[in-house]
Amino acid sequence: MKVSELGEFGIINLLTEVAHNSRDKAATSWQQLFLGISDDAAAWYGDSAMQLATVDALRQGIHFTLETTPWADLGWKALAVNLSDIAAMGGLPRYALISLALPDQTEVENVVTLYKGIIKLARQFGVTIIGGDVDRAPLIDISITAIGSTSSRTQPLLTRSAAKDGDKMAVTGYLGGAAGGLEMLTKHLQFDTEATNSLRQAFLHPYPRVAEGQILVKKGVRAAIDISDGLVADLNHICQSSRVGAKIKVDRVPIMPAVKANFGARAPELALSGGEDYELLFTADSEILEQVKSSAPCPITEIGEIIADEKNEISLVDSHGRPVHLTKTGWEHFKPERRQR
Amino acid sequence: MKVSELGEFGIINLLTEVAHNSRDKAATSWQQLFLGISDDAAAWYGDSAMQLATVDALRQGIHFTLETTPWADLGWKALAVNLSDIAAMGGLPRYALISLALPDQTEVENVVTLYKGIIKLARQFGVTIIGGDVDRAPLIDISITAIGSTSSRTQPLLTRSAAKDGDKMAVTGYLGGAAGGLEMLTKHLQFDTEATNSLRQAFLHPYPRVAEGQILVKKGVRAAIDISDGLVADLNHICQSSRVGAKIKVDRVPIMPAVKANFGARAPELALSGGEDYELLFTADSEILEQVKSSAPCPITEIGEIIADEKNEISLVDSHGRPVHLTKTGWEHFKPERRQR
Repeated sequence: MKVSELGEFGIINLLTEVAHNSRDKAATSWQQLFLGISDDAAAWYGDSAMQLATVDALRQGIHFTLETTPWADLGWKALAVNLSDIAAMGGLPRYALISLALPDQTEVENVVTLYKGIIKLARQFGVTIIGGDVDRAPLIDISITAIGSTSSRTQPLLTRSAAKDGDKMAVTGYLGGAAGGLEMLTKHLQFDTEATNSLRQAFLHPYPRVAEGQILVKKGVRAAIDISDGLVADLNHICQSSRVGAKIKVDRVPIMPAVKANFGARAPELALSGGEDYELLFTADSEILEQVKSSAPCPITEIGEIIADEKNEISLVDSHGRPVHLTKTGWEHFKPERRQR
Repeated sequence: MKVSELGEFGIINLLTEVAHNSRDKAATSWQQLFLGISDDAAAWYGDSAMQLATVDALRQGIHFTLETTPWADLGWKALAVNLSDIAAMGGLPRYALISLALPDQTEVENVVTLYKGIIKLARQFGVTIIGGDVDRAPLIDISITAIGSTSSRTQPLLTRSAAKDGDKMAVTGYLGGAAGGLEMLTKHLQFDTEATNSLRQAFLHPYPRVAEGQILVKKGVRAAIDISDGLVADLNHICQSSRVGAKIKVDRVPIMPAVKANFGARAPELALSGGEDYELLFTADSEILEQVKSSAPCPITEIGEIIADEKNEISLVDSHGRPVHLTKTGWEHFKPERRQR
């Protein structure tokens, strides 16, 4: 079987199983491990705090093209997607290592611009770049590992597996902007200046919700994920890990205004399955959710609820509770319906 | 200027400078940092031990081809090069994160074999795979981040910058095997079974010198590097970082017997500049060196000495102390004399 037939999540599940079955459970590293390859980031016990690490790559022709992504934004985004994973665990990012592949003919000036994009974001979160590797390759490839920690050893984490039947489901910020921005850039769509700027920003310059992740933890939220694959696809990760089902009230999903104004009937699809918004999706009881709403520096919108469901299914309903169908529900690599960004 | 003109080390130096100049020195992560992008691995203060992290990638067509490197060996080697960096700091590897890119048409079976190769080595050192990322891409790309620690908070590290005028210089094991193995596989050279096996092993299956790194630290060695770019090139890293010069006694360099037997007059060149042997090169005073020799589980060979030299030059001398010239002194990416493996 080819990897294209099995799909990205299929490959990940298979490799996770291989790794799990052959683990040396006597190893100290295994005994101190809290969470392995099953969440936004791995977590292990340090002395004064839980340690966190995650890796994610941006690959030319797959995740970006230079036509849509300027060098500085590429650097920013390559780090942002990783800090977002640390944020989604309720952690604070601290260090980053950069593995970079570049074509021979790349202008040195562009590499410096890329690197400055990484550093610009790193500085905002007190992240220090501690290592790297540079090679030549036919295409640009930036793989960043982010290392972080919780604020204390007793601080709980935000995990994919903590959602409970009866929890309300909510998201930070607005959705659909990244997918709308990508479409605007690839199809050269012309919108007004404000919409153009906010769509560009959403796609090229995601801002990791580190502060919001901290607030979620403090207010008692325990289940969260960052929206990278798409709202439905990432909610599916929560449902599978928590062994629950979920109901999304489609009309409640906070669509970015510029998407609503410019993509008409397709706006909900972009918000539900577009991906790359790097907002946090979390679940909690009503009381905790109210507390989060009153403390968060960004909009927090309730979009549905977690329900008991052995099949771990997600249903979409309209304002009257009637089922809604969407054509796409997220994206994964290797599958035929994949997109090029 | 193109990156091919500046070269790999030029790019790394430039990016290190950019990162250094824009560091936020008020950040906790910076204050707790012991060593940044200037050694085999980065190091920062944990509570009970110094924490270490490093990243290195194997890229298809640059570092390997599937014609010379079977999938299982590719996995082994991708992790080995990183554990070697942790070993060269005197650290113990603990965790690894794997960022993997695969062509659509890759057989799933091969991916599993690759992964099992990684795990086989991981188990030998109690390393747990804690994270990963899988994407499609036109070429195979494996970037691994290894995270480790020292055995205690007070344990000193092995660094590139601790070599001193008057130190003796020594290496673990034998050199030239990886370069000989690569040449044997690419040129389909026919040698006897024993030589074939040991050359294959040297190129495809390097064994990280973790235990040896621990012994070096315990016996009082403070300066070391692993030989990835080539003996002369890696010694050059030590000389630049320690602001010293060095004299290599070419006749003393321990050439792998299979290389000596099959590559004739070219054997010294393979041993001095071949790279990828992943042996440790270290410097220490004679007394410490004697102690290392009597405790190490592998051959330890004295190959020259560190000298005071403002230009940080490396000279090669024969058994009579006469200068020797070599055509190649190591390799780096982007430079015209680069090799494809």
